[in-house]
Amino acid sequence: VSGRYSYDGLDRILHEKARLGILTCLVAHPEGLLFNDLKDLCNLTDGNLSRHLQALHQHQIVEIFKNQEQKRPQTLCRISAEGREKFLAYLEELNRVLQDAETTAKNLNQIQAVPPGWAPA
Amino acid sequence: VSGRYSYDGLDRILHEKARLGILTCLVAHPEGLLFNDLKDLCNLTDGNLSRHLQALHQHQIVEIFKNQEQKRPQTLCRISAEGREKFLAYLEELNRVLQDAETTAKNLNQIQAVPPGWAPA
Repeated sequence: VSGRYSYDGLDRILHEKARLGILTCLVAHPEGLLFNDLKDLCNLTDGNLSRHLQALHQHQIVEIFKNQEQKRPQTLCRISAEGREKFLAYLEELNRVLQDAETTAKNLNQIQAVPPGWAPA
Repeated sequence: VSGRYSYDGLDRILHEKARLGILTCLVAHPEGLLFNDLKDLCNLTDGNLSRHLQALHQHQIVEIFKNQEQKRPQTLCRISAEGREKFLAYLEELNRVLQDAETTAKNLNQIQAVPPGWAPA
């Protein structure tokens, strides 16, 4: 079937590797996480996490809060209701990929020989 | 735990959205697929599929064969034994992400109110 493996539901905004970790972490902490804790849990640098949070914030996937009462203002990051919904839809599509891949990977073996009539490019 | 959500096993070469489709499709067709059939199944343009196959070929994930006997030489694409192993390892890590995300997503609900003492950034 045409487009059988196109997986259009894999939103590129969410699919990026580091963001997948950030969002999985935030979904597990719906009350939100401090920037430094999130950074540590996802093993990212300050710059990397900032950049990804900015992108996710622009797309209304995460909410960012500042606490101005303290000497060093802290940042709290939380997945938004909209972001959570989008992420759950993304995970459903990801599940489809896994089912497609794992079912066939277990049943089919790799053919090693060069097929007759063909030459390696 | 530090790095709990870093998912280092998500090889960026394989994780790219279109490549995930290409590899899932090739794993389901271990005998290989003609370029045009793969293109159609993954809903990609000629240029896009060429570009991704080139990257995957450079990393020995896919094998490319040419059939020179025909007037219009055809291209056959196949996942390599090494590529298959790497992809299966990648899928295992992806499964970990899904389990982490789905378990918590089902159990925890989003808190909507702005937390006390914090202001939106």
